[in-house]
Amino acid sequence: MFGNVLQGLVEGTGGGIGAVLMGYDGIPVAQFFRPTQGPDLQLMAVEYTNILKEIRTAAEILDIGRTEEVAIRTERYLLVLRTLTDDYFVALTLERDGNFGKGRYLLQRDASVLRDALA
Amino acid sequence: MFGNVLQGLVEGTGGGIGAVLMGYDGIPVAQFFRPTQGPDLQLMAVEYTNILKEIRTAAEILDIGRTEEVAIRTERYLLVLRTLTDDYFVALTLERDGNFGKGRYLLQRDASVLRDALA
Repeated sequence: MFGNVLQGLVEGTGGGIGAVLMGYDGIPVAQFFRPTQGPDLQLMAVEYTNILKEIRTAAEILDIGRTEEVAIRTERYLLVLRTLTDDYFVALTLERDGNFGKGRYLLQRDASVLRDALA
Repeated sequence: MFGNVLQGLVEGTGGGIGAVLMGYDGIPVAQFFRPTQGPDLQLMAVEYTNILKEIRTAAEILDIGRTEEVAIRTERYLLVLRTLTDDYFVALTLERDGNFGKGRYLLQRDASVLRDALA
């Protein structure tokens, strides 16, 4: 079930490369990667798990509300992380010129489906 | 000069609250804040300096190119960080329902002006 949602995210977003449903413990629950010569998306997800944890902690310290979404644009890729529950988040990786708006929209749309399935 | 650019960023973006030109050493070079009952934007900038440093390091480890932009959406605010040089970045804070696209556009437009002035 998770795999289908992740596949829909990647294939529905122009420039989509891969999506991972991750636990904050750094363990992936499900993933869908396009066959590509691209980066090690699993390693990326693990690296960004730690960063997202720190962003979440910073938001708590600053009392600016729960972190919902983090987007990181590098010279080559675009990464959108969306928090689902206290324990899980989704990471969607796009080509740099991928459709950022569409990716964000689909992540937002599918978040509640994934959240329900995780509960 | 920096102050005017930051003021333009905040006032030109719907929902803009404040902008800070920061060094990665955690020292602000210039800032413009709207008078508001909002969060401690200076403290936010310092917290996010450390996070941006880690994001930068992760991108180097993963070999996915230089980090250009990071956007963080919380329940209450939207924060856009744009890297300028190896030593400086700009942080723009918006209300949660602020004009994200316009903020990103203005940051991108003004980045070269700020970069030239820092050189």
